[in-house]
Amino acid sequence: MDAAGGEQLSLAAVRDALVRLEDSVVFALIERARHPRNAAAYAPGGGGAGGRSLVEFFVREAEALNAKAGHYQKPEDVPFFPQGLPLPLFPTKSPPKVLHPLASLVTVNDAIWKMYFDELLPLFTVDGDDGSYAETVALDFACLQVLSRRIHIGKYVAEVKFQDAPQDYSPLIQAKDSNSLMDLLTFKAVEEKVKKRVEKKARTFGQDVTLEVNAGKQQVTASDSECKVDPTVLSKLYDQWVMPLTKDVEVEYLLRRLD
Amino acid sequence: MDAAGGEQLSLAAVRDALVRLEDSVVFALIERARHPRNAAAYAPGGGGAGGRSLVEFFVREAEALNAKAGHYQKPEDVPFFPQGLPLPLFPTKSPPKVLHPLASLVTVNDAIWKMYFDELLPLFTVDGDDGSYAETVALDFACLQVLSRRIHIGKYVAEVKFQDAPQDYSPLIQAKDSNSLMDLLTFKAVEEKVKKRVEKKARTFGQDVTLEVNAGKQQVTASDSECKVDPTVLSKLYDQWVMPLTKDVEVEYLLRRLD
Repeated sequence: MDAAGGEQLSLAAVRDALVRLEDSVVFALIERARHPRNAAAYAPGGGGAGGRSLVEFFVREAEALNAKAGHYQKPEDVPFFPQGLPLPLFPTKSPPKVLHPLASLVTVNDAIWKMYFDELLPLFTVDGDDGSYAETVALDFACLQVLSRRIHIGKYVAEVKFQDAPQDYSPLIQAKDSNSLMDLLTFKAVEEKVKKRVEKKARTFGQDVTLEVNAGKQQVTASDSECKVDPTVLSKLYDQWVMPLTKDVEVEYLLRRLD
Repeated sequence: MDAAGGEQLSLAAVRDALVRLEDSVVFALIERARHPRNAAAYAPGGGGAGGRSLVEFFVREAEALNAKAGHYQKPEDVPFFPQGLPLPLFPTKSPPKVLHPLASLVTVNDAIWKMYFDELLPLFTVDGDDGSYAETVALDFACLQVLSRRIHIGKYVAEVKFQDAPQDYSPLIQAKDSNSLMDLLTFKAVEEKVKKRVEKKARTFGQDVTLEVNAGKQQVTASDSECKVDPTVLSKLYDQWVMPLTKDVEVEYLLRRLD
């Protein structure tokens, strides 16, 4: 994780990384929302190689390129198509080993993929086709990548929480009691705050910034319909998918923590 | 151009596209600024294939992938390494033909590349090395691509201006009088407004959004040092490079306009 200094893992550093990634998630969605749905980019076959949709072709190839450049070395960077990824062609720095070695096995990318295309995309893009399929799938890849990174930082959240109270977690891990682990990882008040904050970020970053005199005031009062992505979509994204999937990652990580 | 509807080209549509791309430029720079300089990503050789730097390797390969997906069909989407780009593997929609056919020849990407790495990057990234080279060059590619698109929309600006006053432009084009064309294309008051607006966008989009009560006020008064990218860097970027290079594109386009 970028924010984690050396081998030392602190809750503050993990939280900072999560908060910073909220901005990245909002930026990525705002950029994708420049284009309409562009359903042709998701149609199987699409005229392309191997009968794959354009988006699947693009994400597979982009991940191969990123792997050659040295990506996917950190436990929070998880490819959507891990099979047969090429090795790095350039020297990489090994990330500090702060997690359990089995951390790299934990992935919820299949759920993220399904959520993104089936649920999220229709919520923040308008119906239509502007023909910009290549741009569209590149922007989808950016959204998928940042959502996946954000959610898989749950591995660090789990490690910090475990180190903080091994006596609470160890019996539940040994009993493979996923439900009680989930309860122990859930803080409703914190989740409500996160939802409010991402909504505010969407309102701030998705506004039309102008030089008009009242623009300062307008920043706070701009109606949601004027925003490039509806702020309540961000709140829903975090409530229904990002935070639950993060906790799935945390539970999956903890279940392996004593192996 | 996304904002141009059909074959009809209006100054309003071109302006909207330029204003919207300011947001994209600011987002891209804020994202790159998450990482320090990471000079190793730019060292020739870098251990990689063909003695190229990691960033050159990445941009070449990313452009090849984007070309396969159908990118670079529009006159404002200009690759940095156009030699030997693969053909699209998926069906593409032809963009409406609103520009002179020679528009696709106009490129200032060499100047953009040099400006980005030699001048801009040291202004908005901190010294240092966090080892995240693959992420870094992917974010550089995003910055380069959005700057290039922004600047090459100058082709549409030039076409709109020409259509609006062919009697002013034609004699200068016939005389190949670049200097007078440049004067005719320069509107100091508009440029000052653009500089102020991008600075304000950097201040708005680069702030730390929190849920504190005074956060609304803080949005307007946050000091520049708290922003993720120094807002004056955006103003300088537009003043010294984006707007001059856009006008270079406009002049180059106009010089071919009567061929």
